Amino acid sequence: MTSNTTEKEHAAPDQGADRTPVTVIGLGLMGQALAGAFLDAGHPTTIWNRTAAKGEGLVARGAQFADSVGDAVAASPLVVVCLTDYEGVRGLLEPLGDVLGGRVLVNLTSGTPREARETAEWAGAGYLDGAILAVPEGIGKDALVLYSGPRSAFEAHESALSSLGAGVTYLGDDHGLASLYDVSVLSLMWNILNGFLQSAALLGAAGVDASAFVPIATKGIETVTGWLPDYARQVDDGVYPAYDSTIDTHVAAMRHLVAESEALGVNAELPRLIQDLAGRAVAAGRGGDGYAALIEQFRKPAPA
Amino acid sequence: MTSNTTEKEHAAPDQGADRTPVTVIGLGLMGQALAGAFLDAGHPTTIWNRTAAKGEGLVARGAQFADSVGDAVAASPLVVVCLTDYEGVRGLLEPLGDVLGGRVLVNLTSGTPREARETAEWAGAGYLDGAILAVPEGIGKDALVLYSGPRSAFEAHESALSSLGAGVTYLGDDHGLASLYDVSVLSLMWNILNGFLQSAALLGAAGVDASAFVPIATKGIETVTGWLPDYARQVDDGVYPAYDSTIDTHVAAMRHLVAESEALGVNAELPRLIQDLAGRAVAAGRGGDGYAALIEQFRKPAPA
Repeated sequence: MTSNTTEKEHAAPDQGADRTPVTVIGLGLMGQALAGAFLDAGHPTTIWNRTAAKGEGLVARGAQFADSVGDAVAASPLVVVCLTDYEGVRGLLEPLGDVLGGRVLVNLTSGTPREARETAEWAGAGYLDGAILAVPEGIGKDALVLYSGPRSAFEAHESALSSLGAGVTYLGDDHGLASLYDVSVLSLMWNILNGFLQSAALLGAAGVDASAFVPIATKGIETVTGWLPDYARQVDDGVYPAYDSTIDTHVAAMRHLVAESEALGVNAELPRLIQDLAGRAVAAGRGGDGYAALIEQFRKPAPA
Repeated sequence: MTSNTTEKEHAAPDQGADRTPVTVIGLGLMGQALAGAFLDAGHPTTIWNRTAAKGEGLVARGAQFADSVGDAVAASPLVVVCLTDYEGVRGLLEPLGDVLGGRVLVNLTSGTPREARETAEWAGAGYLDGAILAVPEGIGKDALVLYSGPRSAFEAHESALSSLGAGVTYLGDDHGLASLYDVSVLSLMWNILNGFLQSAALLGAAGVDASAFVPIATKGIETVTGWLPDYARQVDDGVYPAYDSTIDTHVAAMRHLVAESEALGVNAELPRLIQDLAGRAVAAGRGGDGYAALIEQFRKPAPA
């Protein structure tokens, strides 16, 4: 780690002297949180933003505001960028050319796997694409931050990056992985929220408050979460034993869900899709298998 | 509680003498687990099943196998029935007529709210409809068992029913509530499993094992679960503040999910429905609100 190899070379008048210098470009709420976490961990921190006013609080905490984006990049071996979109990243950094060479550029801007791979083509050998699974308040605390790209680039700065959250995770060489994990986790979250809201609508139509459902929903979520390691193993192995409940059994209960949603006049699209997907698994001969066999339906486009 | 009011009247040669006598009708895996839990808690337990052989293990543990279903009902003030469907319950118990009078009948058969309400019409004033959110192995341990119907009937036997699991919960007078909660929890579980499988298919198309996704998925689920009490309050209040993320922001990320699903050739129905529902909320003027505002879309049928 850079922080360890350099600490003997400099007499350290302050705690920052044995920490890798870091540059943060883009000072929206997330960028400010990132720079703040590096400052808190004692890293000499250079910042830059198109609107300088957003850096004032960080300068008061010890950050250096660079005169130009080129100066900002040149100031540190580790450069973290967090803008609104990838187009902005390219417009700002690609013109700098050789200044990026030999540095590790970590792009924490939200985007797609394709954008991440395209960025890797111009951003050089030290490019890491990352994704932040947290709100700005979680940075430096329990945030999960994912990285993909060359392992050597990650390992060179793992110590500094660990200042950003409790869950710093390297996913692999494919630059697209961080974004793909990101959108996968978001998808899971939307599914849970939609599932909760669908149930809240059903119960609400019978006069039950959503708040009354929370304790039972929470218990149900905890139960399902406990099944995931085993379901994932089944998905990876392609074998789907039905321990206590077959897809056939689920389909029978899904009919109740659709019927009840329609009877109560609430949205039945999600219940119908749940039933359709399971029905296709039954049609494919998986009715006697466990629920994880539905992976075969998710792996292919919808039937025409 | 019956167990308290009767305990002084009988000298108690064994632990069962101060416990309410209970009858269990229907000895599938779940019925056997129910009767076993009552036996373990010291309740004099009468059992009946069309096929007597299924009761042998319980008889060996001290249960009485009744000569007829009428005798079984007559034996106890609390009668629990757990069959394959409501039709079976009606065929077996409605012909008994007055024998049910003055007893509490608890029906733990899986069914719909409508079936529960229909059963209440012929099963008398002491009818409780219930739902078991557990596998048979959870009975007597951490099972969640829900009851709806007259509160007095529940309270008269709450002590005995608490033998069945850790989470015995009374939901209200409407006999349909237990089934409605049941199907609501199942719906939430299916949504989570589908969300996980959708993400596993996406990541799998990029060569990532489902098992590698489990730790990050679990963290995502825990995060969302922590939001539910607040989201539920917003749903109940009809006010949906966007703390750190508006529906507009979500919609932008949902476009990535749909594009990536289509690009990787995995099923995109669920991503498209997620996007459609949020898009309708934006069209309804909720783009600047928080995610819970989607409840308004779930409360009404899909647009034609």
